Amino acid sequence: MPVDTSAPWAGRLARLRGELERARVDALIVSHPPNLRYLTSFHGSAGAVLILPARTLLVVDFRYGVVARAAARISGCEAVIAPVTLDDAIVGAVQESGANRIGVEGQWMPVARFNRLSVQLSTAGPVDVDGGEVCPVLISTERLIERARAVKDDREIATLRDAGRRLALVASQVPALVRAGRTEIEVAADIDQLIREAGFERPAFDTIVASGPNGALPHARPGRRRLAREDGVVLDFGGVYDGYCVDLTRTVELGGAAQEWRRLASAVAEAHQAAIAAVRPGILASAVDAAARDVLVRHGLGDAFGHATGHGLGLEVHEEPRIGRPVADQVELLLEPGMVFTIEPGAYVEGLGGARVEDDVLVTTGGAEVLTRG
Amino acid sequence: MPVDTSAPWAGRLARLRGELERARVDALIVSHPPNLRYLTSFHGSAGAVLILPARTLLVVDFRYGVVARAAARISGCEAVIAPVTLDDAIVGAVQESGANRIGVEGQWMPVARFNRLSVQLSTAGPVDVDGGEVCPVLISTERLIERARAVKDDREIATLRDAGRRLALVASQVPALVRAGRTEIEVAADIDQLIREAGFERPAFDTIVASGPNGALPHARPGRRRLAREDGVVLDFGGVYDGYCVDLTRTVELGGAAQEWRRLASAVAEAHQAAIAAVRPGILASAVDAAARDVLVRHGLGDAFGHATGHGLGLEVHEEPRIGRPVADQVELLLEPGMVFTIEPGAYVEGLGGARVEDDVLVTTGGAEVLTRG
Repeated sequence: MPVDTSAPWAGRLARLRGELERARVDALIVSHPPNLRYLTSFHGSAGAVLILPARTLLVVDFRYGVVARAAARISGCEAVIAPVTLDDAIVGAVQESGANRIGVEGQWMPVARFNRLSVQLSTAGPVDVDGGEVCPVLISTERLIERARAVKDDREIATLRDAGRRLALVASQVPALVRAGRTEIEVAADIDQLIREAGFERPAFDTIVASGPNGALPHARPGRRRLAREDGVVLDFGGVYDGYCVDLTRTVELGGAAQEWRRLASAVAEAHQAAIAAVRPGILASAVDAAARDVLVRHGLGDAFGHATGHGLGLEVHEEPRIGRPVADQVELLLEPGMVFTIEPGAYVEGLGGARVEDDVLVTTGGAEVLTRG
Repeated sequence: MPVDTSAPWAGRLARLRGELERARVDALIVSHPPNLRYLTSFHGSAGAVLILPARTLLVVDFRYGVVARAAARISGCEAVIAPVTLDDAIVGAVQESGANRIGVEGQWMPVARFNRLSVQLSTAGPVDVDGGEVCPVLISTERLIERARAVKDDREIATLRDAGRRLALVASQVPALVRAGRTEIEVAADIDQLIREAGFERPAFDTIVASGPNGALPHARPGRRRLAREDGVVLDFGGVYDGYCVDLTRTVELGGAAQEWRRLASAVAEAHQAAIAAVRPGILASAVDAAARDVLVRHGLGDAFGHATGHGLGLEVHEEPRIGRPVADQVELLLEPGMVFTIEPGAYVEGLGGARVEDDVLVTTGGAEVLTRG
């Protein structure tokens, strides 16, 4: 059956193949599920894409035979149902292909599997390379697919725009849920219900409703605490739409909050605006983080903002690019049109509470498009 | 503050410490989130427990400071907020401790992190061991905590019993949802709603509703297909209750199904009963799998049953013990009282559909207690 060229998967596989030479490998074992979905549309809990010099295989176990055949068809690769284990099938196909520098996803492959696969490959014996015999070796590559995924194509952007609008609609209904006397758990359940009613497959992560003093925990879990007057409440939630994740935070005041908390919340809102205003192609991701951080430092809240300003969104709720301070030894991405990420500065003070404001932005040629504006 | 000895975490840490000697390591880096929760009650998306000769540290980033301090208190370890990265803090503490054989969780630690940590440890320089100088090395260990987790303590059993009863209550309401004309997605959403109403934190995985021909896909996703008369429908769902997962499958017939499908469904039900009857302490997990498989083979359905008979349940929805055919190079667990796992044989035939029946069992001294019986 001919490959549907309007579908993106075959193109993604072809571009990845181009990256293999730069990474100095002649084959690649892809096992991270979101990467399998990105390359072939296949989404199961287990499987592998094996890129060999002359073939691309989607290797799955018995459970996924039917869906893997469909995914192979639309992405232009071959489905293989492993008779025993995935790794046995992978070793057999590598051996047959003559490839000898085999890349793996170093960020994801566990060291025990790496060691076992290495042993299996050397036990399987050498392959012929240019007249000589060489044992295939595994090579840890990093972020080959993640870097490609950071820049969304038109189809992905359309999905994320649609998802962002739906999440903004949910957000517009949230303030009405935040009433004194209700528990955090009740509010979180209502938000999850709104997320489903808005057409999402499911929440993208466990919804956060952190009221009053709990707001000081950036990753609080909703509890039985009842919202009270004078509370500031941080509500952080997201949805998965056609496989793609969006993520949003609002901070709501119940009335009568302390002046000190209000100053904190207003500084966070200012930092959020400053970071969005900073977004444009060609700058380092850390420059966006610095724009938010500088505002909070100026307000004396530098130490109260301990996390990064944002993270990429796509098939995963945390992906590249990371919008944070530079990390030693990590090459930072330059922002490019098509990148989609959160902007979510916050400030957290034990005893006083916290505030966070989060929207999702798309980098455009001229700056940023906010995807989660109602 | 004194350790609460009625709480299980300090005991678990102490038992794990005993395992280190057998694994021939003098320290262990634990990073798999369910294992962190098991050992300290801490549940965040990132963190590490570092077991050193004289100290146990719970290392987290800024976001989790407050909850980590609480978890450290109840589990009797020390909370450390990493000033830069988790791994910098880990390397510093290892260096200071003088430990030189540092175990990691080989099943979970990605090879890239393993390589980076190794470099960091050797760059940090040698430690004094018995008068000489040695560079700390990382050693891939496997299943140290997973094997302990496979046998539940009284507190975990009480939680799983309660969760099983709640899931059985959900299951009793499911047949009424399965009506001709409704879509799979609608039925799945209703089940998810029942799961929440039954007191679960959330579904344990994406609910499966696979009707008619879709029943032939063991891991189908609910789609827009409308249930029709003559359909067999496979419904597989689970819930997380106080952190612990339970999992259940029912196959429902809408009436007028083909004789051939009914024979298949009845063979699966027979296999399910046979496997439960086989459960007792002291046998290999694969013996339970064989009990189910033999029944299906006898009915000519051996090839139609491609997955394992069951999997352990606990802080993860798939954990040890695996109830399947023996796997080369893997040491199989003997069943012990306190193990909790699913029994879920199925049969899948393209074109005809499928059937699966699943309950959760606890191994007792005398056999099995079914946890998901209403």
